[in-house]
Amino acid sequence: MPLTPSEKALVPFVSVDHMMQLVHHIGLADMLRGIADNIEEDFRRWPLFDKTPRVASHSEQGVIELMPTSDGDVYGFKYVNGHPSNTRDGLQTVTAFGLLADVATGYPVLLTEMTLLTALRTAATSALAARVLAPKNSKVMAMIGSGAQSEFQSLAMQAIAGIEEVRLYDIDPAATTKCAANLKGTGLRVVECTTAEEAILSAQIITTCTADKQYATILTDNMIGAGVHINAIGGDCPGKTELAPAILHRADIFVEFPEQTRIEGEIQQLDDDHPVTEFWEVLTGAATGRIDPAQITLFDSVGFAIEDFSALRYVRTHIEAPPFYHPLDLLADPDDPRDLYGMLARAKP
Amino acid sequence: MPLTPSEKALVPFVSVDHMMQLVHHIGLADMLRGIADNIEEDFRRWPLFDKTPRVASHSEQGVIELMPTSDGDVYGFKYVNGHPSNTRDGLQTVTAFGLLADVATGYPVLLTEMTLLTALRTAATSALAARVLAPKNSKVMAMIGSGAQSEFQSLAMQAIAGIEEVRLYDIDPAATTKCAANLKGTGLRVVECTTAEEAILSAQIITTCTADKQYATILTDNMIGAGVHINAIGGDCPGKTELAPAILHRADIFVEFPEQTRIEGEIQQLDDDHPVTEFWEVLTGAATGRIDPAQITLFDSVGFAIEDFSALRYVRTHIEAPPFYHPLDLLADPDDPRDLYGMLARAKP
Repeated sequence: MPLTPSEKALVPFVSVDHMMQLVHHIGLADMLRGIADNIEEDFRRWPLFDKTPRVASHSEQGVIELMPTSDGDVYGFKYVNGHPSNTRDGLQTVTAFGLLADVATGYPVLLTEMTLLTALRTAATSALAARVLAPKNSKVMAMIGSGAQSEFQSLAMQAIAGIEEVRLYDIDPAATTKCAANLKGTGLRVVECTTAEEAILSAQIITTCTADKQYATILTDNMIGAGVHINAIGGDCPGKTELAPAILHRADIFVEFPEQTRIEGEIQQLDDDHPVTEFWEVLTGAATGRIDPAQITLFDSVGFAIEDFSALRYVRTHIEAPPFYHPLDLLADPDDPRDLYGMLARAKP
Repeated sequence: MPLTPSEKALVPFVSVDHMMQLVHHIGLADMLRGIADNIEEDFRRWPLFDKTPRVASHSEQGVIELMPTSDGDVYGFKYVNGHPSNTRDGLQTVTAFGLLADVATGYPVLLTEMTLLTALRTAATSALAARVLAPKNSKVMAMIGSGAQSEFQSLAMQAIAGIEEVRLYDIDPAATTKCAANLKGTGLRVVECTTAEEAILSAQIITTCTADKQYATILTDNMIGAGVHINAIGGDCPGKTELAPAILHRADIFVEFPEQTRIEGEIQQLDDDHPVTEFWEVLTGAATGRIDPAQITLFDSVGFAIEDFSALRYVRTHIEAPPFYHPLDLLADPDDPRDLYGMLARAKP
């Protein structure tokens, strides 16, 4: 007879469908703001987190990564892959799932899809950084790359950083058309552009989010004038960058976790001791952000485990009523913890 | 309307109940032998695996670990905790789950409980090492510690290493009684002992598997005579050992992955350059195992990611008919991979 596992053995599991229903229940803009608030809160207590560069397994086709962190009470990690060639086979470039566990017992307390949630937390992080670092009253964003992240970036910049117009460009016009169609009715003014140069016209914020695994030059030096904020998302693993090195030398660079960004970010193109500012220090006031309207600020974002942690704990506190999860029989839980074998023996059909 | 996720988005999930049914379907002894065969196969191709010491997050109460590896085609990792104080609250000391993914796409292909499976793979690894390293015709094992691992260790030693008698000892007599009762009818001769000294009488194999997070001395130097094989399981994290250092100096020491064992195993008590033999090299013939019946061999086992990988691929190839899994909606899979937002939008209730 199959035994009914006890409460302790059941882990709440948020499926993709649950996550989509949760987003619609809360509203995307509110959820992006809520996740950004959690990220800001966690970045402000940055020193107390267990931090480690993600554990990456590289192959010719891509990378599989584990991103763990802990605040001492709760432990979280994300599994995420990055396979740019996947789209050719009808698969996602990035898929992910994540977990929270109780540090005191090691028992998982949440398992959730994170493909969607990663898109949300990445956009929320970008918009939080833009709100803090972009020129005051930025209203126009250029969005270079119209892939799976583009709508979330655009809507987070609207919800969190006050952007009113997005200017879209992608080497594949069909992608731009897709993005523009999706953004219809959101309140954003959407301009489809046929070149990257056209997209950046009048933009105070320039987001790059392309997916080739190579040293690409999405932005050349002469495209970047004074007084802009660059939100560089796509350069996120060794050998994958988007910006001309000359831009990096003219910009003030803000990063999440330098130990990781120097390996994976745009700054892998620079010397190991090139000065960068940790973004969390701008939030706490320990470091300065933008000090001059003419300055070029660059958020060299590769994604860090604490952002996932913040998103996971947002989900954990919002799935209860109505339940946006189902209980998963993930953990063996014998009545007598030393009697795992007895539990197995009693389950004999 | 919730969308039906496509095949690619569904990951086979093996629950605790599925795993128990699978064990009974195959038979525990056969499953232990099958896993040991996979471990031997994978240990023989050791150099081609991606190897890294596990990624541990330590707290006062215990540790949470991620153990990734890859053979270039398949990636696997295990989440596992170790919280010795858990049993006081009716929880398992160790719980675990694991995953396999396709390296070419990064897509998970199996998610499974691993609390039970870890018990099986640990026992299979111990018995494989004992078959190779213990004195010829070993028939008697002392089992020090009668916790959750003890029955699996005993039955694996019977199925794989030819053990006919187990001599049980635990500081808690109730645990020994539990273990002895569970082993009734298995064909093993079971002797309940009231001291560790009594347990090791006539034993050619001595297994230590106790769970205190401290430097303990389960075996003192004068307890260990010539011609035995010690299977040391319980010393598996920094600050947690079971053997008197003097025993280590008299033994030939075999380990899984030295970089990890020097941090976590019994040999954390020795100098960093104390000679040890990698067990996989004994299997390939690159190193010698036991060369003398009077020798003391010690398998200082802390558990390594490749063993989990071997167990995971065993499960993957045995769950199809009848299905011992159910499909889990873990991965977002929009029709157009660049249109994650469109998938979300269309899921609006």
